[in-house]
This record gives sequence, structure tokens and C-alpha cells, in this order.
Amino acid sequence: MSNIALKIGVAVSKEKALAAVNTLQGLAGWWTWDVSGDPGEGGTLAFRFHGQGPDMKVLSTTDHSVHWQCIAGPEEWLDTEIKFTIKDEGETAIYFQHLNWKDESGFYALCSMKWATFMLSMKQYLEHGSGHPFPDDIQINTL
Amino acid sequence: MSNIALKIGVAVSKEKALAAVNTLQGLAGWWTWDVSGDPGEGGTLAFRFHGQGPDMKVLSTTDHSVHWQCIAGPEEWLDTEIKFTIKDEGETAIYFQHLNWKDESGFYALCSMKWATFMLSMKQYLEHGSGHPFPDDIQINTL
Repeated sequence: MSNIALKIGVAVSKEKALAAVNTLQGLAGWWTWDVSGDPGEGGTLAFRFHGQGPDMKVLSTTDHSVHWQCIAGPEEWLDTEIKFTIKDEGETAIYFQHLNWKDESGFYALCSMKWATFMLSMKQYLEHGSGHPFPDDIQINTL
Repeated sequence: MSNIALKIGVAVSKEKALAAVNTLQGLAGWWTWDVSGDPGEGGTLAFRFHGQGPDMKVLSTTDHSVHWQCIAGPEEWLDTEIKFTIKDEGETAIYFQHLNWKDESGFYALCSMKWATFMLSMKQYLEHGSGHPFPDDIQINTL
């Protein structure tokens, strides 16, 4: 199994950073405008990009973390898990993990790169009020 | 052992993309202005950021790849390897790998994120003529 792990530091409180990953408004601010469902523990979230995208079951939420499991969407994402963990490290640090990939495929490398652009989007959203969620996402290919 | 893997697509030829990773001028265009040494097979490259940074031994270069080993620099980088592989996938795809990390530490997550910003820098350098090499690099923390 392989994982994707990314970390950014943001100039906002832990509480504000957490709201970016455990509320619909927050998630729409940096990942995709088309998000619906219940971000609370036991809920299911639907993220859409031109009508397609993953469904995430919320395995747990705490005062410093969110943990999802992918229950529908791209085949390589099925049963993978996503964690956001907020830590106070002198700055507010946001750790992102996309866990349990079967292979380090080209799609894995593409998603790792794309997640990084969404973390930049999250940083911009938190610090300046607007990010680059889909469909205004940062482009990483030319096709 | 853990790896970092990233992929971007760029709107330039394979040959131009390769020059971004196997020439001093190319490397200075997206990673750090302070690069010196011999980018040819068997050579050693010194990358510096405010006077500190890694030395890379060039294990191999081909018409579509570059393969380095870190022989000095941050402790967690020692003996790790870096590969760039250029593929024609309808667009010119650049695969980046930073291989053989001992742990998925916070530094691993930070470097994964930072490498992604340098890949964005490489894309901008290749497509528009100027990127964001150090010291104009994209910031991912606030300290």
C-alpha cells in the first residue's frame, strides 16, 4: 500500500483551518463548489466535478482531524482513506494524507500533484477568503 | 521505504522538457538559481538555498530520463534517489519521483508539498519562460 502525504502551514487559527475540512462551506471554498451531504461523523459527502467524483463516508471527526473513506468514485480510490490533521507547530499546520493506494500508478502521481494544488487552494482560501476550487482549479496538464 | 511521486503535463516538446532537468540553465529556471556542477552522467550537482542544500550524484541520464542520488544534504535525504522521466502521452508528461524515504515524517509531507510547487514552477518555466525558482519560490508555510 502507498500513501500520499502533504503538509502546509497557514496563518489562521486551528479552529478556522478545521472548518475548511469539516463544513460544506469550507470544502466548497477550496476543493469543489459541487459538494453536498453530511460532513458529520457517520455522514456521507458527495464531491462532484462535471457530474463525476467520489463519495466519502465520514469515519470520524475530532477537534483536530477529519477521516473519510472513499465508498464510490474512481476505481483506484475505492476503499482508500483520506485524513486531514491540524496541528499547532508554532504555525497552524495542516497535514493531508490519502492512504492505502494499491499502486504507485500514473494516476497516483497525477492525484498527488493535483492534491498539492488543492492544498495551495486551501491555504489561499483560509488566508485570503477565496481559493481555487473546481471549476477554477489550478491546471496541471494540457489535455 | 516510501516514495514521493508527482506528474504534470506540459505544452512543450520532450526535448525541451528534458533540458529542464539535465542542464544547469534548465534547473536554475525552476528549482534554485544557485545550482552548480556537472549535470552529465557521473557528475555531481550542488543545489543551494541560502547556502544550504543537497548534493546529487548523477547516476544516469538518457534521452527521456535523469536519475540522481543524494550524497549530501538534509539527513532524511541522504541516499534517497530522484528520478525525472519524460513520456509522450498525447501531451508531454513529466514524472517526478523522490524514492527511498525511511519514514513518512512531517518533513516527508512538507517536501512532497514543496516538490509539487517546484513542478508548477517547472511547468510555468517551460511554457512561459520564467518559473518560481528559489528565492522566488512559492511559499507553503508561514514561519
